[in-house]
Amino acid sequence: MKLLDKINNPEDLKKLEKKSLSTLAEEIREEIISVISKNGGHLASNLGVVELTISIHYVFNSPFDKIIWDVGHQTYTHKILTERKINFNTIRMYGGLSGFPKRSESKYDAFGTGHSSTSISVALGFAVARDFNRESYKIIAVIGDGSMTGGLAFEGLQNAGHLKKDMLVVLNDNEMFISKKIGAIVGYLAKLLTAGMARKFEDKVIKTISRFHGFGLPFKKIIKRVKVMLFPGMLFEEMGFTYIGPVQGHNINTLITILENLKNMNGPVLLHVITKKGKGYAFAEDHPVKFHGVGKFDIKSGKITQNNKVNFTNVFSDTLINLAQKDPKIIAITAAMAKGTGLDKFAEKFPNRYFDVGIAEEHAVTFAAALSAAGMRPVCAIYSTFMQRAIDSIIHDVALQNLPVVFVLDRAGLVGEDGGTHHGVFDLSYLNYIPNLVIMAPANENELQHMLKTALNYDNPCVIRYSKKGSDLEVSLDKFPSILQIGKGIVLKKGNDICLLGIGNQVETCIKAAELLAKKNISATVVNMRFLKPLDSDIVKEILLKTKKFITIEENCIIGGFGETIKALLCSSGAVVECIGLPDKFVEHGSINILREKYGLTSENIIKKSLEILKN
Amino acid sequence: MKLLDKINNPEDLKKLEKKSLSTLAEEIREEIISVISKNGGHLASNLGVVELTISIHYVFNSPFDKIIWDVGHQTYTHKILTERKINFNTIRMYGGLSGFPKRSESKYDAFGTGHSSTSISVALGFAVARDFNRESYKIIAVIGDGSMTGGLAFEGLQNAGHLKKDMLVVLNDNEMFISKKIGAIVGYLAKLLTAGMARKFEDKVIKTISRFHGFGLPFKKIIKRVKVMLFPGMLFEEMGFTYIGPVQGHNINTLITILENLKNMNGPVLLHVITKKGKGYAFAEDHPVKFHGVGKFDIKSGKITQNNKVNFTNVFSDTLINLAQKDPKIIAITAAMAKGTGLDKFAEKFPNRYFDVGIAEEHAVTFAAALSAAGMRPVCAIYSTFMQRAIDSIIHDVALQNLPVVFVLDRAGLVGEDGGTHHGVFDLSYLNYIPNLVIMAPANENELQHMLKTALNYDNPCVIRYSKKGSDLEVSLDKFPSILQIGKGIVLKKGNDICLLGIGNQVETCIKAAELLAKKNISATVVNMRFLKPLDSDIVKEILLKTKKFITIEENCIIGGFGETIKALLCSSGAVVECIGLPDKFVEHGSINILREKYGLTSENIIKKSLEILKN
Repeated sequence: MKLLDKINNPEDLKKLEKKSLSTLAEEIREEIISVISKNGGHLASNLGVVELTISIHYVFNSPFDKIIWDVGHQTYTHKILTERKINFNTIRMYGGLSGFPKRSESKYDAFGTGHSSTSISVALGFAVARDFNRESYKIIAVIGDGSMTGGLAFEGLQNAGHLKKDMLVVLNDNEMFISKKIGAIVGYLAKLLTAGMARKFEDKVIKTISRFHGFGLPFKKIIKRVKVMLFPGMLFEEMGFTYIGPVQGHNINTLITILENLKNMNGPVLLHVITKKGKGYAFAEDHPVKFHGVGKFDIKSGKITQNNKVNFTNVFSDTLINLAQKDPKIIAITAAMAKGTGLDKFAEKFPNRYFDVGIAEEHAVTFAAALSAAGMRPVCAIYSTFMQRAIDSIIHDVALQNLPVVFVLDRAGLVGEDGGTHHGVFDLSYLNYIPNLVIMAPANENELQHMLKTALNYDNPCVIRYSKKGSDLEVSLDKFPSILQIGKGIVLKKGNDICLLGIGNQVETCIKAAELLAKKNISATVVNMRFLKPLDSDIVKEILLKTKKFITIEENCIIGGFGETIKALLCSSGAVVECIGLPDKFVEHGSINILREKYGLTSENIIKKSLEILKN
Repeated sequence: MKLLDKINNPEDLKKLEKKSLSTLAEEIREEIISVISKNGGHLASNLGVVELTISIHYVFNSPFDKIIWDVGHQTYTHKILTERKINFNTIRMYGGLSGFPKRSESKYDAFGTGHSSTSISVALGFAVARDFNRESYKIIAVIGDGSMTGGLAFEGLQNAGHLKKDMLVVLNDNEMFISKKIGAIVGYLAKLLTAGMARKFEDKVIKTISRFHGFGLPFKKIIKRVKVMLFPGMLFEEMGFTYIGPVQGHNINTLITILENLKNMNGPVLLHVITKKGKGYAFAEDHPVKFHGVGKFDIKSGKITQNNKVNFTNVFSDTLINLAQKDPKIIAITAAMAKGTGLDKFAEKFPNRYFDVGIAEEHAVTFAAALSAAGMRPVCAIYSTFMQRAIDSIIHDVALQNLPVVFVLDRAGLVGEDGGTHHGVFDLSYLNYIPNLVIMAPANENELQHMLKTALNYDNPCVIRYSKKGSDLEVSLDKFPSILQIGKGIVLKKGNDICLLGIGNQVETCIKAAELLAKKNISATVVNMRFLKPLDSDIVKEILLKTKKFITIEENCIIGGFGETIKALLCSSGAVVECIGLPDKFVEHGSINILREKYGLTSENIIKKSLEILKN
């Protein structure tokens, strides 16, 4: 019988002896590797925190104590240990467990997340509330070193250091995995420190020196500085945190001892833990980026079941490299998503013209604005959902000054298994009202290359948004990208009964629907609108002369998006406009196809709506 | 003849002798005080940087060298010295100079701004572009200590420290004005440091120690730490900047010497300058917050020509205090806008329940989300334009988890003289598509108190947006706030010819218009919609039975706002809908009344549009 079989919740975990916990860790690792090889998911980050998670749950009492996970793509062990072992094999599947912490899923998930750098602010909010309510729970935020680069984390640190509330921030540092030897020494120092020895020593020195208080020098400050000179983490000490570490993050015994010692420390404490991404699975240890967010894979060979067909991301990547070869002004910027945006290839080709700024979307955009003002041609590639962080930078630094920056929003529309925090279904709405922007969405990969060239040759800021899932149509790529006319859509098929207006990846849904409608003797006009802004109102008005029945479809929420824009245009025209798009709710996780089916982003739904409209 | 009379541009400035520059500073101060006492504007911040600005222009060569101002509310001296002395008296007036740097206004304004914490990212963008283009200009960012609290500044520092480009960041620290004596000593040290002495010393020590390289310890690191132990600014050194300072910021000679020394230093340098807000004008020195953004005032008495009538801000302030007296769960949060939002009074009354988090809007919102999750009732008051920074936090941390946080957006709509960077004319559009939000806008101050009570008693996140300018109607406040029905508008006047739908402060424009229309024998229905979301579609559909002619009016951009929402609702209904609101462009600065006139937010325009619609 496995140890894991005996464990359903943190209470069960506490019944185990300390010395058997590393065996449990191995069992959990096996379970994670097995499930993720079938479901896909965040592998490397989760394998890195198995021991850390076990230790935290062994020492603290969740759900009474609040564990706040940053980003949340490292919570699989947490889920397994908190009553979700039984359905862990449903993770990321429609109707199954979420890949991220979620308040509505479990009382052990104190706060939901999916985006980075929120955990310190959240921990502080809980700490303030706890003290108001005279409660006594502990608060532990677990944040990766990548998330620490986000400005929000800094804002949180700052305010937490200022308010001096009791809370523990665990910095999970998986970038600089240091050698075992050094790890051990440092671990020993950290243990001493946390056991109070170093603090006592410090107090003694301060007292001694204070006697010679002759020159009015700030001795306490000097002592603090001597301490931070001897130990790393000055930055955190400067900000008001007590810094402990670094500690080796795969030794459960050490971790437990340290966490026990830290449990009753006052004020904000930062524990620096060193872990290895992908720990325990050789392929993931060697290729942590490849195994960050991964599809199905073969456990033995480490081979990922990949879809090698042309998709938006690799067409963007190749086209940008080709264009950059001819135009030395082109600069590429990403916010910690080199591989996801396809800019990793650009980085290899043009290392000096490539900037990964870390998880810092606002900086990425403002930095791009200045590059543009100084004569360069920056291309800023950020996922649709993460660009929500930089809307003010787009408005205030780029659009207001009408600077030609090209924004490339990958993962626009439904992203599937990552779910509600990650769907890129708001961008058309959060961009449409911004003056000076040009907003386009390619119907297929070939159009994307033309749009990229178009954007790089236009004097306004331009946005190109496209989805993770490539088009299902067989698309051949033109040899050279060409410049499209700004603000012009194209009629793909002429018909007299009804008009289907599509944008982005939903144009192909219109094409399929029109073919099926033709079989029912209904002739539909199909328009690829290409641009949300400027909107091709001429093309729509021309069609209005033939038919007054319209259906719009977009992989974006309907409110403030393409559909409502068309409705606003055709209001008072006598036309009937039916909008298909995502509803006014947060969309759950599940495969893209299941979600499209559920929310009607299908040719079948277009046909159904067409028949309804034509009946009246 | 004044010295200032001889100066039109930085070239003229360089012709002056150093010793006469402090006289010039006094003349500029007089000019600023004189003009701002008439025009209103940012007084304290501008008086604080007169010497600093003169010194920068004396040493560097703008526009060849790029001076990047953070926030930009300290650029009056800069404007006076860069060809804008002649029309400085038009500052903040419609058609006159902007109160902020603006690329389209002057070649000396390298980058426009208005929001905080962008300058380091911008300076870095210029530095990268400069090096690509093998240009040789210098880059100087001037940033206040307040702006340093913004996460974007941290993201910028981090990337600048990493990329090691030559750039100078001047930290204008006007919080902790230190005594002259200490200032002088520190200033001397800074001079020595910048003259290269300390650096030479450091090199020598490193060389000496390196010989005893026995234990493989990182000596360079230790030396660096010894240095930062002796001098402040560790945080910046840790991030890869060379830190110099603090330096007294009102001694032009010292500043010039230091800036000359820094001119040719390599890598990113941070110069810490201590200035006094309001310097040289006793009333502003004593009350820097009062004289931050100030209306007209009397120079001799320091009395501000104040409008003491009831407005939204003080009704919010009073109501929140009353409600908080009864509900101990209410917490107030602001991001460095205590006075502007009216929360300064709350802070006096409930110091422990009040949190000013600094210029950190994202943190403010995420912190509020956690407070709400932990059972408190947070009210987060942030200007509409600054909330653009925290849209993702609203989506990801609040709305997705449907946490009851109350957002209070002051300065929604036109703000007048602060202009394009500050108008709050996007919020209805950037909020409307977010699921779970309730969005309301009071027509007058009395309604605001009811809305605040309503929001604090509802289980969804709620937004209340209102304008700087109170309503012009005589409004009496009900003694007690009551709870409104969520999502219900009210018919203020019934009529059969046309329907005027207003939201927020534009309801009164509808009322006035209806009165004037009545004189022309046109009977108009007037609706105060109260809620953008959930929208009262029932009330609109009921009216549709009587009239099919509608006019909407809002102090927000039309795209994605209230008007387009009504158009989308009434599309296919056969109704004619005309929307009045702000156009798809950035609105310039000028008095609110001038701007309302220009963009048709007037009862006269409603009448004109009504007559047009009724003619057809």
